[in-house]
Amino acid sequence: MSEPLRVMVNGRAGGTLDPLDRGLAYGDGLFETILAVDGRAPLWLRHMARLAEGCARLGLPPPDPAQLAAELDGVVAGLARAAVRVTLTRGSGPRGYAPVGATATTRIVAAFAAPTIAAHVQRQGIRVRLCDLRLAAQPRLAGIKHLNRLEQVLARAEWDDPAVGEGLLLDTEGRLISATAANLFLCRDGRPMTPALDRCGVAGVARAEVLALRPDCLVRELGTDDLMHADEVFLTSSLRGVMPVTRLGDRQWPVGPVARALQRHWRGMDPAGAAA
Amino acid sequence: MSEPLRVMVNGRAGGTLDPLDRGLAYGDGLFETILAVDGRAPLWLRHMARLAEGCARLGLPPPDPAQLAAELDGVVAGLARAAVRVTLTRGSGPRGYAPVGATATTRIVAAFAAPTIAAHVQRQGIRVRLCDLRLAAQPRLAGIKHLNRLEQVLARAEWDDPAVGEGLLLDTEGRLISATAANLFLCRDGRPMTPALDRCGVAGVARAEVLALRPDCLVRELGTDDLMHADEVFLTSSLRGVMPVTRLGDRQWPVGPVARALQRHWRGMDPAGAAA
Repeated sequence: MSEPLRVMVNGRAGGTLDPLDRGLAYGDGLFETILAVDGRAPLWLRHMARLAEGCARLGLPPPDPAQLAAELDGVVAGLARAAVRVTLTRGSGPRGYAPVGATATTRIVAAFAAPTIAAHVQRQGIRVRLCDLRLAAQPRLAGIKHLNRLEQVLARAEWDDPAVGEGLLLDTEGRLISATAANLFLCRDGRPMTPALDRCGVAGVARAEVLALRPDCLVRELGTDDLMHADEVFLTSSLRGVMPVTRLGDRQWPVGPVARALQRHWRGMDPAGAAA
Repeated sequence: MSEPLRVMVNGRAGGTLDPLDRGLAYGDGLFETILAVDGRAPLWLRHMARLAEGCARLGLPPPDPAQLAAELDGVVAGLARAAVRVTLTRGSGPRGYAPVGATATTRIVAAFAAPTIAAHVQRQGIRVRLCDLRLAAQPRLAGIKHLNRLEQVLARAEWDDPAVGEGLLLDTEGRLISATAANLFLCRDGRPMTPALDRCGVAGVARAEVLALRPDCLVRELGTDDLMHADEVFLTSSLRGVMPVTRLGDRQWPVGPVARALQRHWRGMDPAGAAA
């Protein structure tokens, strides 16, 4: 993770932001974090679908995928592997929460160097911890990748041990939901399952890809008991693909066949994702 | 509510914002909306105290009140009555939720024309409605005025009838919490009470002023039954002072003695607050 390589604001390189943009004033907007490999985004359609749904849920105008594609091309030109953050906000407007009067939406497209997952992590999996912070249940905002992310900031701030790869989050009722920046899958007898995200959490595009590849996957309420009884555990994210979880405290899991098969699929999409 | 009159970013007039500021990326920051009357903010100390608590809760460096006071002076110079929005964010940093590596915090100070409450509203009170959106319970973020305000945006978007002055919010358990941009007080037999804000809601500075003036005020869980059985109802906000609530659907309340006494106190602080 590093400084951005290129940034466009409303289509202009080096464009600036109104200090009173509602995206900052209230977190009034959405974002996508898109992996671009040799200038192409393997999960582009899923990102655009999620962005469109988020705009509909927040009463924002629908996104313009052709315009965003052109701007993504602009910021990744010449980069073999980039993480592109696309942000849409409600733009500027009169002071106050009411969304009326907001002028045109603000569009930010920024390219960063994409993280490469060390091959040993892909092979051996990561250690996770259980976060203290509990996610609040807000169905109106569940699933979409809006800008109100203080829960994730506070959860991620709970650790700085580089040996811990991610933190698992429960909701305020103790249901297992996700990691701070990835979705979670458990497998029992070869069958994957993943938490329902109707109350909180972000419905990831990589999660959507797995659900399409494994229509037998159960989507339901899960708890820490399910985690402890799982045969294998893995996380998914657009930038990191499939990350097996092999340690939580004293509990260990193997890297299992479900994750391995999905990793093979991901290598087809992102050949350079795992560093040799 | 109008365009800002003057804006400073990190102490510079007309300063610009990094499009990747964490205040926009994640709503990673706090704000205050401060009434300035003839260049002085009557509730300044309460605003600084709340801002300091918010910084402590979010792991941000403590604010510098002397610096903020100088910048407030800069943006309100010559204005009889201004609403000043002070925003602090965690600034820029590497991509991702982890707050480490964020460079210096970002500071935005902007002056707007302050709303004047028509005298008849002060005398007759306002009509409110009950919002459909329910506030989620997140104790880690309760009380502080952070930038994650999509709940308030969505709640305020529920109506555009100018005859409705505010919307009341319940939490997901049905407890009465506040209005979208004000705190709520109910009175029974002359005794005020206000919702506890340990799970959600913003602990307003005007609310704090009322609690100091009325140490007999109860702070506890309240529900719509309490609202319906109240003798009088009023809202408080830093910019609007004390606003009696006189109508909700078919229910009506008088403007009562508790509100009237508090309005007299407020006129001492903000003589021009109510337009003749």
